[in-house]
Amino acid sequence: MSLDSSGYNGLVLEKLSSSNIKVGDTISIKKNEEENVGVLMPRSQVGSDQFHVIIKLESGYNIGIKLDQGTEVFRIKAGKKKRTAPAEKDPIVKGLPTASILSTGGTIASKVDYRTGAVNPALSAQDLYDTVPELRKYANVRAKVIMSVLSENIQPADWTKIARSVASEIKNGTDGVVIAHGTDTLGFTSAALSFALQNLPVPVVLVGSQRSSDRPSSDAAMNLIGAINLATKADAAEVFILMHAETGDSYLHAHRGTRARKLHTSRRDAFQSVNDYPLFSVTGEDVKELRVPLLRRDTERKLTLKPNFEEKVALVKTNPGIEGTIIEHFVDTGCKGIVIEGTGLGHAPDRLQPSIKKAIDAGIVVAMSSQCLFGRIDMNVYRSGVELLDIGVVPCEDMLPETALIKLMWVLANTKDQEAAKELFSKPLAGEIDMRSEESQYVSGLGGD
Amino acid sequence: MSLDSSGYNGLVLEKLSSSNIKVGDTISIKKNEEENVGVLMPRSQVGSDQFHVIIKLESGYNIGIKLDQGTEVFRIKAGKKKRTAPAEKDPIVKGLPTASILSTGGTIASKVDYRTGAVNPALSAQDLYDTVPELRKYANVRAKVIMSVLSENIQPADWTKIARSVASEIKNGTDGVVIAHGTDTLGFTSAALSFALQNLPVPVVLVGSQRSSDRPSSDAAMNLIGAINLATKADAAEVFILMHAETGDSYLHAHRGTRARKLHTSRRDAFQSVNDYPLFSVTGEDVKELRVPLLRRDTERKLTLKPNFEEKVALVKTNPGIEGTIIEHFVDTGCKGIVIEGTGLGHAPDRLQPSIKKAIDAGIVVAMSSQCLFGRIDMNVYRSGVELLDIGVVPCEDMLPETALIKLMWVLANTKDQEAAKELFSKPLAGEIDMRSEESQYVSGLGGD
Repeated sequence: MSLDSSGYNGLVLEKLSSSNIKVGDTISIKKNEEENVGVLMPRSQVGSDQFHVIIKLESGYNIGIKLDQGTEVFRIKAGKKKRTAPAEKDPIVKGLPTASILSTGGTIASKVDYRTGAVNPALSAQDLYDTVPELRKYANVRAKVIMSVLSENIQPADWTKIARSVASEIKNGTDGVVIAHGTDTLGFTSAALSFALQNLPVPVVLVGSQRSSDRPSSDAAMNLIGAINLATKADAAEVFILMHAETGDSYLHAHRGTRARKLHTSRRDAFQSVNDYPLFSVTGEDVKELRVPLLRRDTERKLTLKPNFEEKVALVKTNPGIEGTIIEHFVDTGCKGIVIEGTGLGHAPDRLQPSIKKAIDAGIVVAMSSQCLFGRIDMNVYRSGVELLDIGVVPCEDMLPETALIKLMWVLANTKDQEAAKELFSKPLAGEIDMRSEESQYVSGLGGD
Repeated sequence: MSLDSSGYNGLVLEKLSSSNIKVGDTISIKKNEEENVGVLMPRSQVGSDQFHVIIKLESGYNIGIKLDQGTEVFRIKAGKKKRTAPAEKDPIVKGLPTASILSTGGTIASKVDYRTGAVNPALSAQDLYDTVPELRKYANVRAKVIMSVLSENIQPADWTKIARSVASEIKNGTDGVVIAHGTDTLGFTSAALSFALQNLPVPVVLVGSQRSSDRPSSDAAMNLIGAINLATKADAAEVFILMHAETGDSYLHAHRGTRARKLHTSRRDAFQSVNDYPLFSVTGEDVKELRVPLLRRDTERKLTLKPNFEEKVALVKTNPGIEGTIIEHFVDTGCKGIVIEGTGLGHAPDRLQPSIKKAIDAGIVVAMSSQCLFGRIDMNVYRSGVELLDIGVVPCEDMLPETALIKLMWVLANTKDQEAAKELFSKPLAGEIDMRSEESQYVSGLGGD
């Protein structure tokens, strides 16, 4: 790859070219008494400035360094020629586990759109593999692109497709499955797969990145390496989300697929467990169990695949201006289920009660969660909760509203009967409900004193 | 008040009656070598067990103690006769500041509903004052009940009423206003008052409690005492939410009215600042400034009252199953504004774009916030964000979705022109937007290692 096709330009391109440095070369950059050594990465971002280069350190992490007149840059080792053979044809290394990487799109596999200047999904699973060659050290990797969408566009039908792909990988024999996915709806997909893939024999690890891989601060490589190690080494067989545990690059946290959500728009530790604790911490290839998983790894266990979801389920977040007509809209448009994101312990304005009753009378399952996110629903404490229970609203206990939505979609694809659906919905199936979860499973307060 | 009308029954009633102890008496309870001294509180909860009594300690905090055969209970001091004169007629104590307490309902002023067994709003401001007599130590209190509703039923018209009542208190001369309010929608009301009450001369403090005052673990007294002190002592003039800073009873945090939300269904420290830090910490009568407030106290400053809100503004939380018809429902029912709670940096599924465009073409203001809650919208990074900006969607920056909803209601009551409304909406008015807020303003991760 030549330098100019890789996104560098201006002063940086000049400086690199004059030293005959190419993308993929191991280089040394000396600046202000400090030396950094790493592999020169392509910089494909449109409008990138003329002053920074991006190198991948031995840790697998990318950094950006501003070049100025006094900066010395020289080549330590020429890069290898770009691989062209597909990963599937890589020689199998004996003694290494087998890992499947299914790519769905998102930042972890994205590049810049020349039309709008914004970032778009593009890289293939193969490209991921090329970008993070260290993956080969840990596993024989089978990489597949199963779709290429920004995660905000993922729909229930996509969960079905992903679940089927995971089942197929497991059928073909794998020690663990990694799914590269955009972070926007990563929590929805992980909940969906948690219900669709029952009796898993091996771990399924959803992984994303908060900064695209062409940015100096990208978390893509570290997250992918961690995911491969979690998928192949953890003695567990459930669906996880693996992301940074804190904003630095010290370690990753594996959250239960039904219990985590994106709580920050940009931080690398955006994902947090809610009403639960992370199950594993991962540092490089070191996988540490923090909590007992629901199931242990057992390659003999036979997967139960239930990949279907009822799309006609709505999420309604209450607020002081909400009107009952919104509930009636969903009744009129053929909704089968409604998850209300109420306030506090599970309340909705009294004025919604007639519409909610109408929905339930029409056969719709209506469930109550809390927009607080943390904590447990308790509809027996206040009058408005008690009255909603009387009408037939199902409490979501300590389930996240997003998980409740997905679960109701899954339940209604698996039973059409309202009462049976309510019963199935209330039963813990994938760690999404815990009758004993503690108040201590809460984020610590922001500092200030 | 006799014991049996106060909710005690069975063994406890027997034990207390035999020692001729009445509610309001200072009593000593000795059990297992431990002695607790406090004022016997009424226990009005239906179905309360027969074994616990509740006493208020000198710290102002209530505890419940289980009586058993070996427990000694005796009276130290008889209680004063119940006051009957209204607070307004209390003698004015010279040297003390004047504080107004406006009661709207909620747990901080609630009692049990005999019909359903659940908790209902009931206590008057006067009752609050009787329940926490220490308030008299800190201020000459003017107590008023302006409404009595559970906060899930609060509507925009109620904010107008509350804002007018605050303005009237300020006009009559007060050193600070305290509003007792249910916690379910406390964050919505505090945002509403932040926009409705501009150029405040004194602090306005919203306060609630997570456990009703007849429960042993009630936070009502400590929060009220703190609120009176914050309202009368803080050298600040904005709208605050004051609640427990952590789950124990060590201190309280004052959050900016536009920047806090209820993040836990039951913990006493449920309220957290989002993308901002708490401004004051309060311990008893000690009020400590943590951050510089927007305005300093200045009783000469003339309040600008803009108490109106456009009710036809909707909140739409996106999810993988959402359909464009929901946006069209709001267009068809005459909505003037829509706040989308999108994913990540401010995205919505591409399939919503035609409906969003239709809404904007119809003159509706559509704004984009993030369901991540923490962090800042940045719609320039990904294609779907860029396309929404092109259509005319207004980014909410680092505003909470709930605050954005209230602000849009307020903006649309103050200007009917779409472009002028967009401009006003994007301008920081009450600390709700900060172009420089930091990623560090994030909850710390849950433990696990």
